[in-house]
Amino acid sequence: MDNSLRTPDLTWEKVRSQVDHVIWPDGKRIILLAEGRLVNLSCSSLPSFVVSITAATQMPEKLRDGMTGYKDRNRRRFSLPTAARYMDKSQDSRRSSIASVCSTSSSYTGSSSDDDDVSPREKIQKNSKGFSDFCVRNINQHAFGRREIEIAEQEMPGIMALRSRAGDDKPLKGAKIVGCTHINAQTAVLIETLAELGAQVRWAACNIYSTQNEVAAALAEAGFPIFSWRGETEEDFWWCIDKCVNAENWQPNMILDDGGDATHLMLKKYPAMFKMIKGIVEESVTGVHRLYQLSKAGKLTVPAMNVNDSVTKTKFDNLYSCRESIIDSLKRSTDIMFGGKQVVLCGYGEVGKGCCQALKGLGCVVYITEIDPICALQACMDGFRVVKLNEVIRNVDIVVSATGNKNVVTREHMDKMKNGCVVCNMGHSNTEIDVALALIELFNAPHGRYKSDVYLLPKKMGMCLFRL
Amino acid sequence: MDNSLRTPDLTWEKVRSQVDHVIWPDGKRIILLAEGRLVNLSCSSLPSFVVSITAATQMPEKLRDGMTGYKDRNRRRFSLPTAARYMDKSQDSRRSSIASVCSTSSSYTGSSSDDDDVSPREKIQKNSKGFSDFCVRNINQHAFGRREIEIAEQEMPGIMALRSRAGDDKPLKGAKIVGCTHINAQTAVLIETLAELGAQVRWAACNIYSTQNEVAAALAEAGFPIFSWRGETEEDFWWCIDKCVNAENWQPNMILDDGGDATHLMLKKYPAMFKMIKGIVEESVTGVHRLYQLSKAGKLTVPAMNVNDSVTKTKFDNLYSCRESIIDSLKRSTDIMFGGKQVVLCGYGEVGKGCCQALKGLGCVVYITEIDPICALQACMDGFRVVKLNEVIRNVDIVVSATGNKNVVTREHMDKMKNGCVVCNMGHSNTEIDVALALIELFNAPHGRYKSDVYLLPKKMGMCLFRL
Amino acid sequence: MDNSLRTPDLTWEKVRSQVDHVIWPDGKRIILLAEGRLVNLSCSSLPSFVVSITAATQMPEKLRDGMTGYKDRNRRRFSLPTAARYMDKSQDSRRSSIASVCSTSSSYTGSSSDDDDVSPREKIQKNSKGFSDFCVRNINQHAFGRREIEIAEQEMPGIMALRSRAGDDKPLKGAKIVGCTHINAQTAVLIETLAELGAQVRWAACNIYSTQNEVAAALAEAGFPIFSWRGETEEDFWWCIDKCVNAENWQPNMILDDGGDATHLMLKKYPAMFKMIKGIVEESVTGVHRLYQLSKAGKLTVPAMNVNDSVTKTKFDNLYSCRESIIDSLKRSTDIMFGGKQVVLCGYGEVGKGCCQALKGLGCVVYITEIDPICALQACMDGFRVVKLNEVIRNVDIVVSATGNKNVVTREHMDKMKNGCVVCNMGHSNTEIDVALALIELFNAPHGRYKSDVYLLPKKMGMCLFRL
Amino acid sequence: MDNSLRTPDLTWEKVRSQVDHVIWPDGKRIILLAEGRLVNLSCSSLPSFVVSITAATQMPEKLRDGMTGYKDRNRRRFSLPTAARYMDKSQDSRRSSIASVCSTSSSYTGSSSDDDDVSPREKIQKNSKGFSDFCVRNINQHAFGRREIEIAEQEMPGIMALRSRAGDDKPLKGAKIVGCTHINAQTAVLIETLAELGAQVRWAACNIYSTQNEVAAALAEAGFPIFSWRGETEEDFWWCIDKCVNAENWQPNMILDDGGDATHLMLKKYPAMFKMIKGIVEESVTGVHRLYQLSKAGKLTVPAMNVNDSVTKTKFDNLYSCRESIIDSLKRSTDIMFGGKQVVLCGYGEVGKGCCQALKGLGCVVYITEIDPICALQACMDGFRVVKLNEVIRNVDIVVSATGNKNVVTREHMDKMKNGCVVCNMGHSNTEIDVALALIELFNAPHGRYKSDVYLLPKKMGMCLFRL
Repeated sequence: MDNSLRTPDLTWEKVRSQVDHVIWPDGKRIILLAEGRLVNLSCSSLPSFVVSITAATQMPEKLRDGMTGYKDRNRRRFSLPTAARYMDKSQDSRRSSIASVCSTSSSYTGSSSDDDDVSPREKIQKNSKGFSDFCVRNINQHAFGRREIEIAEQEMPGIMALRSRAGDDKPLKGAKIVGCTHINAQTAVLIETLAELGAQVRWAACNIYSTQNEVAAALAEAGFPIFSWRGETEEDFWWCIDKCVNAENWQPNMILDDGGDATHLMLKKYPAMFKMIKGIVEESVTGVHRLYQLSKAGKLTVPAMNVNDSVTKTKFDNLYSCRESIIDSLKRSTDIMFGGKQVVLCGYGEVGKGCCQALKGLGCVVYITEIDPICALQACMDGFRVVKLNEVIRNVDIVVSATGNKNVVTREHMDKMKNGCVVCNMGHSNTEIDVALALIELFNAPHGRYKSDVYLLPKKMGMCLFRL
Repeated sequence: MDNSLRTPDLTWEKVRSQVDHVIWPDGKRIILLAEGRLVNLSCSSLPSFVVSITAATQMPEKLRDGMTGYKDRNRRRFSLPTAARYMDKSQDSRRSSIASVCSTSSSYTGSSSDDDDVSPREKIQKNSKGFSDFCVRNINQHAFGRREIEIAEQEMPGIMALRSRAGDDKPLKGAKIVGCTHINAQTAVLIETLAELGAQVRWAACNIYSTQNEVAAALAEAGFPIFSWRGETEEDFWWCIDKCVNAENWQPNMILDDGGDATHLMLKKYPAMFKMIKGIVEESVTGVHRLYQLSKAGKLTVPAMNVNDSVTKTKFDNLYSCRESIIDSLKRSTDIMFGGKQVVLCGYGEVGKGCCQALKGLGCVVYITEIDPICALQACMDGFRVVKLNEVIRNVDIVVSATGNKNVVTREHMDKMKNGCVVCNMGHSNTEIDVALALIELFNAPHGRYKSDVYLLPKKMGMCLFRL
Repeated sequence: MDNSLRTPDLTWEKVRSQVDHVIWPDGKRIILLAEGRLVNLSCSSLPSFVVSITAATQMPEKLRDGMTGYKDRNRRRFSLPTAARYMDKSQDSRRSSIASVCSTSSSYTGSSSDDDDVSPREKIQKNSKGFSDFCVRNINQHAFGRREIEIAEQEMPGIMALRSRAGDDKPLKGAKIVGCTHINAQTAVLIETLAELGAQVRWAACNIYSTQNEVAAALAEAGFPIFSWRGETEEDFWWCIDKCVNAENWQPNMILDDGGDATHLMLKKYPAMFKMIKGIVEESVTGVHRLYQLSKAGKLTVPAMNVNDSVTKTKFDNLYSCRESIIDSLKRSTDIMFGGKQVVLCGYGEVGKGCCQALKGLGCVVYITEIDPICALQACMDGFRVVKLNEVIRNVDIVVSATGNKNVVTREHMDKMKNGCVVCNMGHSNTEIDVALALIELFNAPHGRYKSDVYLLPKKMGMCLFRL
Repeated sequence: MDNSLRTPDLTWEKVRSQVDHVIWPDGKRIILLAEGRLVNLSCSSLPSFVVSITAATQMPEKLRDGMTGYKDRNRRRFSLPTAARYMDKSQDSRRSSIASVCSTSSSYTGSSSDDDDVSPREKIQKNSKGFSDFCVRNINQHAFGRREIEIAEQEMPGIMALRSRAGDDKPLKGAKIVGCTHINAQTAVLIETLAELGAQVRWAACNIYSTQNEVAAALAEAGFPIFSWRGETEEDFWWCIDKCVNAENWQPNMILDDGGDATHLMLKKYPAMFKMIKGIVEESVTGVHRLYQLSKAGKLTVPAMNVNDSVTKTKFDNLYSCRESIIDSLKRSTDIMFGGKQVVLCGYGEVGKGCCQALKGLGCVVYITEIDPICALQACMDGFRVVKLNEVIRNVDIVVSATGNKNVVTREHMDKMKNGCVVCNMGHSNTEIDVALALIELFNAPHGRYKSDVYLLPKKMGMCLFRL
């Protein structure tokens, strides 16, 4: 957290899961969502909960770990579990406190079991068929998780079509996939689709907070080796990934990664195993960035697909998903009414455009800050006033950051905000079907089609997607 | 015209028909549409040209006759032609100059004949069947006028339905109607519908500028006694109405009025004839106001229908018609691009709401000024910033007045406007079908149903309209 | 519940609180929100939860108690508690089951105490100051409830302004108010405002499901005599109201009612006390309807304010609140994505207009059904296709009913819906500030200003509201 | 014209300039704008008149020259004037008839002189300073043209900024430019800017219909050698370009082309002169296509800038300009009311997106046809129903083609349209400032920076544009 916000003059008060009031000495309160992380995490009890904390690199840096910062965070993330001593104490305790808040208050069904102090690693659990190669919070929550998965299936017609059309071909027969993503209902649909296409999988979370415990339980109940729960420690986190990579009778040949942690761990700890990999699919900005660095450094010895930049992500996820998320997450976390609210939106890229549409549709007065002249001109032509943040900061009710830059909203701005101003950060989400297609492509590619480099999803696969 | 704009320090330059540049000593130009009258009059060459100059009482008074003002204007309008000495010289000459500009430049087809100095009253014209009971600019323009009427028919499904459904019943058989409205293609459709329903009519213009000469010619060619041309003098104006009221073998029994002039003239000059009237239909704010005054004073000896306040006018004309007019008239008169323009709209009633929708739809940044708290709150909840005019006047590109009040946009405001700012006034338009239904109702009402008072269109007639 | 849905061929599955899947023999599922009650009740864990179940009379009747229907429900509501035998068994058990679902799953903070079988009436609870004149689920939940109230205060600037401006005058000094409304955070703000204005209050819930237990606890902790919890029985319901009406040293002189139950009980059971009342304020359609009936029957011996029909409710609540609610409630209950969804909205009144704006703003294709010709024409001019429900029922993803009529969406329609179609009903919400102003007006009115009749909020009070 | 529309069973009736009624044997009329050319040409009397007839290659081919088609048209365009015999008689006469319609009816100011049969080539005209190196319709119309230019300047802040900032540097000093574009007020602003930057120019029209005669007169009056009038013959057309290329004491060193005709003529007829050219700037799709062909064939011996594909054109012109044009042109040509109209828009590219925004903003019900899956999905997510043309053709009021393909709207479709259906084609417009920057860049580029090839505007120039 930004040191300038973690000062003795400011009081922090958690009012709901992921909603903090930061209280100024004069009583003014700023409502800070998810401590500046992606705001679409804000509601913890529903499937939309978990989206890409990993990729939450868009937040004003000063609002996050003042000391560590963006690069450091990545460095930390990529450090191996032995680096646990690295974590400073205060952060550790904050994490735990969040985790405990989450565990006590936010799970949908009877969350009492979340409360217990026993780490899942110390529990012995079996599913109803006696299978025990997993580690989740509470296997008994599986029924509720299954319902969430079924609901998610109805909203994912693309991947369900892939399942029904390609199910007979088993194009992933023989694929052994190490997966490392957020574990929510949508991911579960992906995982079960991969299995239906013939793959074997082992799966861990790419983030210590983002697992939907009930969904993880449902996957375990269905016989998938899942290692993940909400509120893992840093050490748990790496332990879980390790359990996916390294298991008896298991030589993985593919990696499906979101953030690059599984790739990193295997590369560092199991280099021999890494060489056997047929391909990597990576769906986050951060992870893709990492892959390009590896490639430049000549250390990437396998082909990788950059799913993050496929057209269905940039043109759809960013725009249309965020159009939905901004409303949903602000509503769930603050119960604010939008009509007549003044909102400043920092950044008019695809994410910003989507947010603006939604906010305008509900009667907000929207201002834009933008440094790119093309995007600024678009904002202007779309009927939004393009301003500097300082011009409007005293009057706005909501500040949304969607720039992808650091230091957009600073302590200095927050000092000027009015009482009750909501500060949040908008992010992006995933496109599982691209991931599945990329896996199929990489897995079935004739030897030599892809060198050890990073690729975009081939065009024909993109078209394939739309024909589903 | 507002005296404060008609000062030696300001230069006036007419750039198109009804578009003036008012030039400040420093070179700044304000683009003033229709000299502050309703802007949807701005384009003279097309059917949408003529809408309610009569009712153009919404304009900031200072922009109009500084001396005379709202009430005076009405007084003048209602004074009989003998009052010609009343008109001050400068105004008279301005009128002529506009008329001449109109006549030379704005008519669609070969308008050369408009130029001739011969007053229509001095010409002898006959239509192709030898009929000569009319007075229009040039009977030879009838073919183009007929095409305009046919185009208008396609956009008036309601009245065309009335024509086809009620045509056989001839519900207006025996009705002898004196009509006094703007004479444009839409009115022509109304006139011909009344005739198809069985009525006899004589028709004059309710405004000296608003006649579409070609349409008047087409009506004359079709055998209607029309007395109207663009650029009438004040004396011509009353002469034309008199020709409609007072003719051989003609005892009118109904009045269809827009502004109250025909009613006024008949009441004052032919009181005996007035008593024979079965009913009056009035479609303007001004005229209705006048009728209520007559009614209060006990001078209204016949029933009258207030068409102006029927739900189909207030809820539809004002909102939806103005939504179309604002764009159309600003485009035709200024060729301005809307995207990104800053617009301040004074007044968020039905007219203002309609304008806002259209402007927002084309990417304008819209500000609202509003004194009514309910409307102001609506503007706010609809996502518009509610401001005081002074706050934004220096920055806006377009100022639209839609308040119905006086002195909304003053010289003081204009001094602060930036170069090239467009100033216009939005108005309202007509609903001919209500007029037709009201006529039928009044004409066929059993004796005694309506006293000598002002009525709203009966509900069942309103329903009838929607069943067409 | 509609008997035709409660047949052996259909399976019901509760997937979340207030979200049911109704499963057809062929596996098709219709997602039915709140069993056809107002959908903005759908999310139980947040302040927006509770809105007017009382008024939930707009739902297609066939989807509700097939046998009892609209009038019966009211009759039952107005029957005294002694009529407990009236309730048929099946309904009773359904209620309990819902109540228990609510109690186990939906409360935000540690809801375990909701589970206990002990009725609040049998518990002995005291707040931290030893005060015990209340009956709530669990006084210990007050801290969370207080936070919810504080959040609500930030979104209620009008009533907070009233508090700060009129707080010194104590215009309600001496008022003794019996309140009977939904008990949620917003109501709590109202209650505490009344107290700040000088009033004494006793408060009960107007609905057996709608109480936010934490908020009730917070009010009790603050020393208010609150008698209300989620999951009351019918007998509890009347007991609670009775506790508010009839207490030691308590002669109420005002009633603030939502649905008319407190009014009804006092009139029937304590007629002498009823005559001492200075005025009634009623905020629901049902309650107002009842008051008019009493007035006609000559039984209303005190003046009453019809808050339901004040302009700030019909023009704002219905339109703007529902614009927010439709999105929020559908999101929370179904996690559906709106972009590209086909939605049919039955009814284009204020509620329908608001819903359409929101849905269109998020990229839905919206169809309208409407029987009123003016509203239908408005829908058309606003760019929505006006259809008959049967034309589109096979293709739509969401069916929203906002008509106020019965039998809008029938079993026959549901048979044609596609798998996963969401069926919901949209309602309306409250305007507490009008209530407060009406109370002040009635309480301070000089003797004789108001007869024993039903009034609308006086105009000057309406203006007063906007000057806050 | 499409042969299937030019059959004896169909009657053609011209109702306004560029508006035809095509009448079926049963009386049904289809309103065909600009005979299927770009509809933003439709109103001939105003500055917005002229946009890119040259590029009007997007129209359903069957609606145009059935025999010749797209490629043929280009071939014809590039054939030298000697190929006049190529033109088939019927087409020639059609052209003349249009030209004559234009000349008689559409010019704004006293257009009588357009009527005269004397070709401008046979007239001797001088401007007020005795300059006679030009050929326009009527030099006396210059005053009105100047006003149009001044109005245009106010709407072109970018190029005016370039004028004021770079005016002193004269970056085009020594440039001798042959220009060949539509000649309207906007182009005039460009031409005068080039002169202020130091260039000498000679200019011809790139289209025989598109010249605004008054603007050409104003340029001639200002001393520019302009060779252009509305209604040129094919021979006139090439004569005019030749007059620009080949003059005494004139060795041009740059070409500014729109369609490639000037380039073509110089290359073929004056190859030696062509080699002296420093660079070509081309702003149309057609011309750019031609340049790439020349480049591939090794015949392009000079560098060329492809202005057509600069981001400011594709992202702005296509989207935002068409958003304005669609409304403006339909209004001016048909006076249609948009609210409630059903519109099918073929193609959801940038042009289609812009049109949709505008139409939706005015209350149309919009359907989309689209063959590209990404664009179709976008239309869907934006809330438009994606259909096949045949599904809706019987119900729609307006058909807009914005696909860039051939045979989109066919006779078969037109047979199914309802009476009064409007058929139009949407196009694109220009970005003069890019043209000016490209000229500066090419003219000042150090020797060798650009090879003989086609380039996009360099990025730094793009940025330069936004800093203006």
